[in-house]
Amino acid sequence: MAGYDALPLTVLTEQFAKLPGIGMKSAARLAYHVMSMPPEEVSTFANALLEARTKVHYCQCCENLTDQDLCPICSDESRNASVICVVETPKDISAFERTGEYKGVYHVLHGLISPMRNILPDDLKIRSLVARVQSGTIQEVIMATNPTVEGDATAAYLSQLLKPLNVKVTRLAFGLPVGGQLEYADEITLYKALENRNLM
Amino acid sequence: MAGYDALPLTVLTEQFAKLPGIGMKSAARLAYHVMSMPPEEVSTFANALLEARTKVHYCQCCENLTDQDLCPICSDESRNASVICVVETPKDISAFERTGEYKGVYHVLHGLISPMRNILPDDLKIRSLVARVQSGTIQEVIMATNPTVEGDATAAYLSQLLKPLNVKVTRLAFGLPVGGQLEYADEITLYKALENRNLM
Repeated sequence: MAGYDALPLTVLTEQFAKLPGIGMKSAARLAYHVMSMPPEEVSTFANALLEARTKVHYCQCCENLTDQDLCPICSDESRNASVICVVETPKDISAFERTGEYKGVYHVLHGLISPMRNILPDDLKIRSLVARVQSGTIQEVIMATNPTVEGDATAAYLSQLLKPLNVKVTRLAFGLPVGGQLEYADEITLYKALENRNLM
Repeated sequence: MAGYDALPLTVLTEQFAKLPGIGMKSAARLAYHVMSMPPEEVSTFANALLEARTKVHYCQCCENLTDQDLCPICSDESRNASVICVVETPKDISAFERTGEYKGVYHVLHGLISPMRNILPDDLKIRSLVARVQSGTIQEVIMATNPTVEGDATAAYLSQLLKPLNVKVTRLAFGLPVGGQLEYADEITLYKALENRNLM
């Protein structure tokens, strides 16, 4: 932003531009929008930022984000605590919960192993996962990382780590997306769909 | 957002989603991003919001946004204060300043007349513009509203209002954009370019 903008506006624009997916033009548009908001709404927004950052932390059990000691899923006694679904981010939990079909619990890694980006196993929430499995009450661990190179590698690494602990380790099925069309499927997805074909 | 997200996170997501151009998915992504920011950066962001909204107000002269009594352009004595360029928003000033060619001053309307959206002349910063012209030191008022129905109508309205005050009222030229291609020009632009042709 050039010097003919009011300084606090320039500062705010720069703050917006630091957010992912927001460039300088969008940031300027958002900053101007804030100028047109009632002051009390701006306070509410600022408080929401501070509250979220200070009150929300990792669940003591599954590392999901929560403002309690235990997240609502871990503290829900109707869930099957012997099945853990391992995901990369808290957002992935929302995706599973939307299906309404999964009744087990979760574990959030907060990342994937990636030697290229210098993210090593110690940078992820793996220690707490191993501790949960070691507690002896876990029957199955479902690897639900994305079907990418890093997601597969992380799933394979965890599988090797957890299998000696006498637990069933499974991986999400890969195949054609429901409602998808054969002609648009990529080779690897089609190959996986063929390989994992089921009896009718 | 569903109930399995921490409440402060849901609140923050809703706040982000209120901003223009940010839907619920982007809002959730931004809220999760805030969780991964160092707490002091979140404070800086929250303060930037509050500072911008409380310290920035309209310039006493031109209605541009500023944190001083007069904006940097109005208080710059090297600018030609007898030529006023009338724009819709403060952002338009940035566009003119980037050309580096305009040496006059500005007046920000903060909107356009739009009976359809119930925006009437009294809702815009027209009174202060008339007062500036009535002061008698203004030689030219350039209508630099967008070449849209509302922009044209507002320019026409202001022109009728200001001409009796014995001031030259002009409108930005319309024609082919520099670097544009004839075959992609719309009919009205091409018609305007033809109508306003210049001697070579």
